[in-house]
Amino acid sequence: MGDNKIQIAHLERICSSALESVGVPSDDASLTARLLVRSEAEGAASHGLLRLPPLLERIRQGSVKPVTAMALVKESPTTAILDAADGIGQVAGYRAMELAIQKATSAGLGAVTVINGGNFGRAGHPASLATDHEMIGIAASNASPRLVPNAGMKPMLGNNPWAVAIPTGGIPVVVDMANSIVANGKIRAAKNEGQSIPEGWATDASGNATTDPAAALKGALIAFGGYKGWSLSLIVDMLTGVLSGGAFADDVGSPDDTSRPQKSCYFFLAINVRHFMDVEQFKGRSEELLKRLRAASDKDVRIPGENSSHNYAQSAKSGILVRPSAIKSLDETFKKVGLPGWDAVLERTK
Amino acid sequence: MGDNKIQIAHLERICSSALESVGVPSDDASLTARLLVRSEAEGAASHGLLRLPPLLERIRQGSVKPVTAMALVKESPTTAILDAADGIGQVAGYRAMELAIQKATSAGLGAVTVINGGNFGRAGHPASLATDHEMIGIAASNASPRLVPNAGMKPMLGNNPWAVAIPTGGIPVVVDMANSIVANGKIRAAKNEGQSIPEGWATDASGNATTDPAAALKGALIAFGGYKGWSLSLIVDMLTGVLSGGAFADDVGSPDDTSRPQKSCYFFLAINVRHFMDVEQFKGRSEELLKRLRAASDKDVRIPGENSSHNYAQSAKSGILVRPSAIKSLDETFKKVGLPGWDAVLERTK
Repeated sequence: MGDNKIQIAHLERICSSALESVGVPSDDASLTARLLVRSEAEGAASHGLLRLPPLLERIRQGSVKPVTAMALVKESPTTAILDAADGIGQVAGYRAMELAIQKATSAGLGAVTVINGGNFGRAGHPASLATDHEMIGIAASNASPRLVPNAGMKPMLGNNPWAVAIPTGGIPVVVDMANSIVANGKIRAAKNEGQSIPEGWATDASGNATTDPAAALKGALIAFGGYKGWSLSLIVDMLTGVLSGGAFADDVGSPDDTSRPQKSCYFFLAINVRHFMDVEQFKGRSEELLKRLRAASDKDVRIPGENSSHNYAQSAKSGILVRPSAIKSLDETFKKVGLPGWDAVLERTK
Repeated sequence: MGDNKIQIAHLERICSSALESVGVPSDDASLTARLLVRSEAEGAASHGLLRLPPLLERIRQGSVKPVTAMALVKESPTTAILDAADGIGQVAGYRAMELAIQKATSAGLGAVTVINGGNFGRAGHPASLATDHEMIGIAASNASPRLVPNAGMKPMLGNNPWAVAIPTGGIPVVVDMANSIVANGKIRAAKNEGQSIPEGWATDASGNATTDPAAALKGALIAFGGYKGWSLSLIVDMLTGVLSGGAFADDVGSPDDTSRPQKSCYFFLAINVRHFMDVEQFKGRSEELLKRLRAASDKDVRIPGENSSHNYAQSAKSGILVRPSAIKSLDETFKKVGLPGWDAVLERTK
């Protein structure tokens, strides 16, 4: 199936072309493609190319609408609730954060919640849209039940992702996390490799601790820090689902059931640094803090956001290696939605 | 030294009387006393009575000013920076959160940072001031370096406490935490009992993993979830120290050096629920979420904030047991600042 190391821009055109073929307007297709490829390039494959086949499948089945028709439910100079009407999560998340930034530009602060969203991708992406405007950004989404504080409880909260992005003189600080000890992908990888997982990572469907990855995939993930991490998911569900008027807890649909809209809810906050001090002063102070953190160890100190940024730069230089399994999945999905297969799409988007 | 089970109101009068004797104005003395005793009553002894002797000592030495003269550094309709001028942390925190709430009352959102603060006590207290006004509240403070993501690094960030308080139909949800695996108090307790601590909790002063609590008290606490918990402290230091223009990282003074002002910085955010929906609707939705969480286990599900609230109710009923060691420390401090001893203060505040 041809060369599988592909330049970022080419891969974006492939994804965008596929999205346009199922009716996504060109601007939205291009934004979604850019964010999927960005995740892949940043080394966050779990939010990358492997999300395209289910998204195309959802659009085909009608559980995601190709046109993301955002409607204003309620608004004030600092706040808003938007209805994403089962549109594309990446698009809805970006539009909502843009509105929060717009409000913070004039008012100093802006908070926007969203109802009826799909999977919005990496929380760090909309959060760092704020740092593009030299603001502090917070982004969060709820998700279907998957997280427990410890064994013995059924999941009722999602592994709700959240991110905080903060401007610096260089690469922004981007803290981007979900609240389980390990990501689902690690458990799936253990299953694929026939390995067991350590006790404490997950429970089976009955809520018992398990070391069997197959059982864990049907059960729940245990939160990092137990109740501490679970409390983070609780805060996110209250700021997203409860505060927006949308779905929360087990009303949020599973990513695995592509026939049903996910109805995820989001929360975005933009804090305009200029309302506190000159932006250059703020950036200088951020850099001073990071300098001290780096000096606190003989080894490399990992500043949140740096790994993704370095990975992206590397991918921009040398292209992205698309694994044969991913190509196979894309090839099949492309054909299913009426596109030619992978090779032909690869060729015509060159 | 007499009966050591004391009613809440009596204990508040004792603390308030001691604070007034070193020049704290009556209103501020009463607020500080109320919050110290509230921590004790809530079962958070680490922020309770044992904080009174060092606070009195600091006022005596001049590193905390008895009059908390809050000055406005910068202000907009949604934001402010306040200078606490080395006043009492509890007072400064409350005043700042009141300002954030005032701003959110009219504007929908309010964010206030504070410079030159002392220890502001439990983060959950100013945060839940927002829920008294049917708003969502966030409170955070930086602290002197004490936290590392893992062994091998010197501490450069504090174990920065933060809290989020959210209205419900009953007891508010109050997530209130610092970012280490275990609190310092647990390590001190292990030392007092001559026990070792598990590997992974702390490092010694050279940054090596240690199981010796004495070495750990001179070293650093390891963050819960490693880099995840450490990232929470980083976010707090950037929202408090960096965004306020005050002290961050190792410029924040140690609680142990009572001769030097701590210069802690705070961040408060108030989100006016009314800008999103009717308050009763929000409370109903919160209760519905909590109901589902409780139904997800056969055992008691611990909703954040409930333990403190139950403990307080119990203390209000049966009084607070003040340990002999605490009485001894208070007795000595009272005499040092020119008050009569514990017994006399106990008697005259009856």
